[in-house]
Amino acid sequence: MDKTILGVDWGTSNRRAYLIDQQANCLAEYEDDQGMLAVGGRERFGASLDGLRTAMGIDATMPVIMSGMVGSASGWQEVNYLDAAVPLTELPAHLAPVAEAPWSANCHIVPGYAYRRGPSADVMRGEETQLLGAVVLGQRDGWLVLPGTHSKWVLLQDGVIQSLSTYMTGELFAMLSKGGTLSSMMGGDTSDAAGFAAGLDQAGVGEPLSNTLFRVRAGVVSRSAPAEQAAAFVSGLLIGAEFAAAARSLPAGGTITVIGSPALARRYAVAAQHFGLQCQVLDPHRVYCTAISQFIKG
Amino acid sequence: MDKTILGVDWGTSNRRAYLIDQQANCLAEYEDDQGMLAVGGRERFGASLDGLRTAMGIDATMPVIMSGMVGSASGWQEVNYLDAAVPLTELPAHLAPVAEAPWSANCHIVPGYAYRRGPSADVMRGEETQLLGAVVLGQRDGWLVLPGTHSKWVLLQDGVIQSLSTYMTGELFAMLSKGGTLSSMMGGDTSDAAGFAAGLDQAGVGEPLSNTLFRVRAGVVSRSAPAEQAAAFVSGLLIGAEFAAAARSLPAGGTITVIGSPALARRYAVAAQHFGLQCQVLDPHRVYCTAISQFIKG
Repeated sequence: MDKTILGVDWGTSNRRAYLIDQQANCLAEYEDDQGMLAVGGRERFGASLDGLRTAMGIDATMPVIMSGMVGSASGWQEVNYLDAAVPLTELPAHLAPVAEAPWSANCHIVPGYAYRRGPSADVMRGEETQLLGAVVLGQRDGWLVLPGTHSKWVLLQDGVIQSLSTYMTGELFAMLSKGGTLSSMMGGDTSDAAGFAAGLDQAGVGEPLSNTLFRVRAGVVSRSAPAEQAAAFVSGLLIGAEFAAAARSLPAGGTITVIGSPALARRYAVAAQHFGLQCQVLDPHRVYCTAISQFIKG
Repeated sequence: MDKTILGVDWGTSNRRAYLIDQQANCLAEYEDDQGMLAVGGRERFGASLDGLRTAMGIDATMPVIMSGMVGSASGWQEVNYLDAAVPLTELPAHLAPVAEAPWSANCHIVPGYAYRRGPSADVMRGEETQLLGAVVLGQRDGWLVLPGTHSKWVLLQDGVIQSLSTYMTGELFAMLSKGGTLSSMMGGDTSDAAGFAAGLDQAGVGEPLSNTLFRVRAGVVSRSAPAEQAAAFVSGLLIGAEFAAAARSLPAGGTITVIGSPALARRYAVAAQHFGLQCQVLDPHRVYCTAISQFIKG
């Protein structure tokens, strides 16, 4: 019988689990809201994982591989970041065994990466697993983009991270929508094409975000700009800032590979075209399953 | 007997009232939390103002001059923005009488300004009153900076607004402190000199805020940067963005005039020095009282 493994993508707010075989097929999947913050303390992760296993009907001998915030200082067990120089395909040799696993099988956490440049650092936890999948699928070079709450732009060369920049795009959008000066005008359709394009344009000008955000409001209250485009404009402003920064390192006509849901990937494809770049998309589910299959011991 | 007027600086969250004579002396002052949002509806502003008058022991014949969000669409009565071309000293000719004043005396609202540049707009409500005071005190030319929740940078030429840029500095700082990825590390001393200077430096590089903010966290979790400097760093990053943008229009060694509380003015003076600018400070209380005295009818 084929060997299988339970992959758990354990994030801050949610977790997703997938039962995966050596051919990267997904045999079962499960999702709930028991992210790191909901678990409520280090000592409860074991029981929480056991609950997930039971809910999926998986027996207690199944090996488990976890990635994401579960390996952070506020997670189950802090796992040191790998240095960016470690090739992604070497991740299976750097797994951290969980000291207090809830059952007899092997439980491991995938380490994140830290990318240091002088006194400055950027980090990832969880995205390294996606990147490994992309590399195994042949995407060993070029710019990979993982959009979301914290969008990651990663430059790979022969499967090694050469550059990492994180943008708090989704988090800032959510904050601005939830309260403050702009929130009353953030209810519009974020995919409004004209508003999104205007935001991308503005991002290319390079003025400070604290100023351009205020001008969204100023435009509406002075009746210079339509309120219903404000949300799409802010989305364009934040996503455009990623492209404007990355464009410094990317040749015109260069290609980015987006690993993201269809809705987000579409928005990034529009932005790529706006900034004169090519865009290809990798399915995050396929990429994840491919990565996890690499952790099955032969 | 000398003529007096009641000036009310009626903002979003708070209001401040000052009884002022023709020589710009402040004879009484009052402050409470009955800002625009607390009043709870347009029809309640009259009673709210009457309550303020009673609390100050001011009789019902006193003229009242109000500025700030009281004149916005969510305030007592919406007052159209003046065009930036209207000289600040002409504000007394553009006051909007309040249609439903609570007592017999004259109640007026000072209009804000809209500054339009192509399709883009910036606006102020309340700061125009401060600017009038500065102009009357002789500050008719150059860059005036009004730091705060929404920092305003205004270029005056002969008492006319030539440029206006608003930065959501205080609002973004408060949002980032209140929740999200950075909040747990925002409790440090915002006046930490090394952290503030490092933030100013980073702002000068011009990378997107959504990225530099994440790197604050990345620096701390990867042990590249001290957590206790994070709040001062973010303050430097946000204030520095104002200076980096303004520096494009300001000659090296140029002077800015800050109208702000001593604590904020000190921080802006440090930033000015960092960016090679001179900084002088005007007391906001004196500036406000000077402006309000201009509205006393001779």
